[in-house]
Amino acid sequence: YKLFRWFSAKQCALPTPKMTENGLGHREKVLNMNTMNPNVKRVEYAVRGPIVQRAVQIEKELKEGVKKPFSEVIKANIGDAHAMGQKPITFFRQVVALCAYPDLLEDNKFPDDAKNRARRILQSCGGGSLGAYSASTGIEVIRQDVARYIEKRDGGIPSNPDNIYLSTGASDAIVTMLKLLTSGEGKTRSGVMISIPQYPLYSAALAELAAVQISYYLDEDKCWGLDVSELRRAVEAAREHCKPRALCIINPGNPTGQVQSRQCIEDVIRFAAEERLFLMADEVYQDNVYAEGCQFHSFKKVLFEMGPEYSNTVELASFHSTSKCYMGECGFRGGYMEVINMDPQVKLQLTKLVSVRLCPPIPGQVLLDLVVNPPRPDEPSYATFIKERTANLEILAEKAKLTEQIFNTVSGIRCNPVQGAMYTFPLPYSSYSNHGYVIRAMCSHHPLSLGFGQRDGTHHFRMTILPATEKLKIVLENIRAFHKRFTEEFS
Amino acid sequence: YKLFRWFSAKQCALPTPKMTENGLGHREKVLNMNTMNPNVKRVEYAVRGPIVQRAVQIEKELKEGVKKPFSEVIKANIGDAHAMGQKPITFFRQVVALCAYPDLLEDNKFPDDAKNRARRILQSCGGGSLGAYSASTGIEVIRQDVARYIEKRDGGIPSNPDNIYLSTGASDAIVTMLKLLTSGEGKTRSGVMISIPQYPLYSAALAELAAVQISYYLDEDKCWGLDVSELRRAVEAAREHCKPRALCIINPGNPTGQVQSRQCIEDVIRFAAEERLFLMADEVYQDNVYAEGCQFHSFKKVLFEMGPEYSNTVELASFHSTSKCYMGECGFRGGYMEVINMDPQVKLQLTKLVSVRLCPPIPGQVLLDLVVNPPRPDEPSYATFIKERTANLEILAEKAKLTEQIFNTVSGIRCNPVQGAMYTFPLPYSSYSNHGYVIRAMCSHHPLSLGFGQRDGTHHFRMTILPATEKLKIVLENIRAFHKRFTEEFS
Repeated sequence: YKLFRWFSAKQCALPTPKMTENGLGHREKVLNMNTMNPNVKRVEYAVRGPIVQRAVQIEKELKEGVKKPFSEVIKANIGDAHAMGQKPITFFRQVVALCAYPDLLEDNKFPDDAKNRARRILQSCGGGSLGAYSASTGIEVIRQDVARYIEKRDGGIPSNPDNIYLSTGASDAIVTMLKLLTSGEGKTRSGVMISIPQYPLYSAALAELAAVQISYYLDEDKCWGLDVSELRRAVEAAREHCKPRALCIINPGNPTGQVQSRQCIEDVIRFAAEERLFLMADEVYQDNVYAEGCQFHSFKKVLFEMGPEYSNTVELASFHSTSKCYMGECGFRGGYMEVINMDPQVKLQLTKLVSVRLCPPIPGQVLLDLVVNPPRPDEPSYATFIKERTANLEILAEKAKLTEQIFNTVSGIRCNPVQGAMYTFPLPYSSYSNHGYVIRAMCSHHPLSLGFGQRDGTHHFRMTILPATEKLKIVLENIRAFHKRFTEEFS
Repeated sequence: YKLFRWFSAKQCALPTPKMTENGLGHREKVLNMNTMNPNVKRVEYAVRGPIVQRAVQIEKELKEGVKKPFSEVIKANIGDAHAMGQKPITFFRQVVALCAYPDLLEDNKFPDDAKNRARRILQSCGGGSLGAYSASTGIEVIRQDVARYIEKRDGGIPSNPDNIYLSTGASDAIVTMLKLLTSGEGKTRSGVMISIPQYPLYSAALAELAAVQISYYLDEDKCWGLDVSELRRAVEAAREHCKPRALCIINPGNPTGQVQSRQCIEDVIRFAAEERLFLMADEVYQDNVYAEGCQFHSFKKVLFEMGPEYSNTVELASFHSTSKCYMGECGFRGGYMEVINMDPQVKLQLTKLVSVRLCPPIPGQVLLDLVVNPPRPDEPSYATFIKERTANLEILAEKAKLTEQIFNTVSGIRCNPVQGAMYTFPLPYSSYSNHGYVIRAMCSHHPLSLGFGQRDGTHHFRMTILPATEKLKIVLENIRAFHKRFTEEFS
């Protein structure tokens, strides 16, 4: 029972595009590598890049019966819980089915709370159908539900539905905010601070917008913690060649799995206020906190607890999604953004901008509504909902622990605890690091880090903790064995 | 029984944003009108702009019991069929419900063909769930189904699934293509030819990308036909200040309702080949053809029928969507693009670019699959499907005719036949045109054309033909009465 490890050796040859011949010989294309958008060329997005494409191809070959020294591809490259076997929350899917096909409202197999939710949502859809466009900022009752959810989460700090913009996953809203923030030319070009390591959506979007990426490094020795002195170093260095305008934070961390302390968040907010930076808080893993002593604190809550000096001035956009946490509904592309202290004129511009794309997908809006407004204790679906949610989160916590434990038994791999989120970002090291590591050695086009970024000379990789426990064990054991073989070979 | 006409007089006051006061007085925002992205500021998108926002507000007031000289808002501003009462296709929604909640596969209320479709789709989803991400270009079996659909539509001309990119509605794919096509600075900046009148997604996307809009005018006197000599005039004038790279066509036309003849399409393709332009064919209304003697011809088909000199060289992207035609499923945000003769290296860049946004929403992909692979004659759902589809298209054809007829009974309004699509773009005129017309006169911020563009000095407006027949009659009668009153008042 052998498995393909996606970073395995010889499989990494890049597909070479074939040039098409045509009747007119070699007439140049109108749209070619010289005429296309140079910013798009600069975009890097290896999480779904050539290695993944190669893995898909290998899967296909396996299906077609091609013999390989393994029988399955376990993909640990992306936070895709359902693909790794996690089951959807029953209540959520019941309501989506009822909304999609309202004849089912007559069916007594569905619980009343699911039917009530579906009726309420359909009433707020144009023509009572998921097939109508919504307002570009999202269906109004759902924006209200989101605001109530935030208030409850943050211990009663008010949230205004007018500050809520529903989105096509969190990525959509993040790119929209980065777009708004980009201006200037040369030394006045907008700079945006992002952590290294980071989730590569950020670097990709900044490249596409030709904004300046300002990298600040997380401290691996402090469990990938964020240090304000490093933020200050980074912003000061950047002021020489751009105009720093925004600071992006991912908490819980992707790919680091770190959960920020309340103190850290306060320090970051103070820094943003002093340096006049727009804060972007990517909080899509807000329910994914596993480590004892760790707790999720939203930037919004901490901001408001710091008093009016901050809560009336610091501009903040925070992001959430249906794709992660206990539900893992990536395919629905649901999400929202809350904006705080945004210039009212800019808000009108934001509304105009999102209206060009008409509206976020309605099924994703529906799913988001269920996430922010799940069954209540007095409703029939409550018990099952809690059972399913708890089970999903407990299994994730178990796998977070398992991953850390196994990695740290490997001599030559160092791994911080997975405090939250869905990833581990271990550092394999050896005295032969001149050879680089694994893919870097074997497949020089694609550093193993896959574009998350890291300090020069280190060769981390990101791996999700999502495969089913038994498979996760196999993956970890294979990495352990591989690391041993690799170290021996190069010694 | 009075109705609010959305372009009615005094209701058009713009909401003025209130400036928030804060503890620190008037500290400038980090993100304000001076620091924000200037390209976003230049974007215009009036279809969902202030007039629509005002209409939504009025609807709310009516609900709250505020007295108005009308009792209902009939929105005729956007092609949103379900919101106007069109019913979804039963089979489509059954399959979506089955996919969302697969327990229903055990339910004998659903026909077998719906179940089989759902099973097949779920098998191609990660973990058998709509909640998993798909490949960034879309689920593979759906891309195969799209290719087969195109082949059938185009009389057997081959379509390669590798050329199919699923998208979040057509808008998403259109913006992606325009993004790829944008490069250069100053006089080498990419220019993109769009029709006037146009669908404002195009002008908005070009403004955002800071690409150059090259306007070509459609000929109202020839039923909004496209004339190649006008294309040539436009491209030649544009060469002096930019680098023309692409030509966008909307057929059937939005907002014109015109359906292009085969000859016209051939002429356009020849023009694109001569002038070295990348062709973008927006064909989202391909099933919406009503007028006798009119027929939809896809650009792909005509291109291939013109022989290898063209079919091997002219670069083409064509777009389709689940939002229009007989299904009108706008809320699902499903769509696809087929690219022909695209440089293979650029195709890799395109795949990379779409991967940054992970994947189009899966429910939208499912719906698209049903559109391209509907029930077959030997399947149990076929009869109902055909009945529903035919009814939807017949009603649209009836309303297209009705709209043209009533408008043309009004002295002072001229209206071309609605050959296809879902819109009419009539020209109200009077000898008092110095006063402008309607909104222009009464609400000077918002020309009645709502950003579709038109020749200087004319004041067209776009109106959908989608309201239910009885309501459509009321809207048309109201416009007739309004035009009469207006003309009298200003004479």
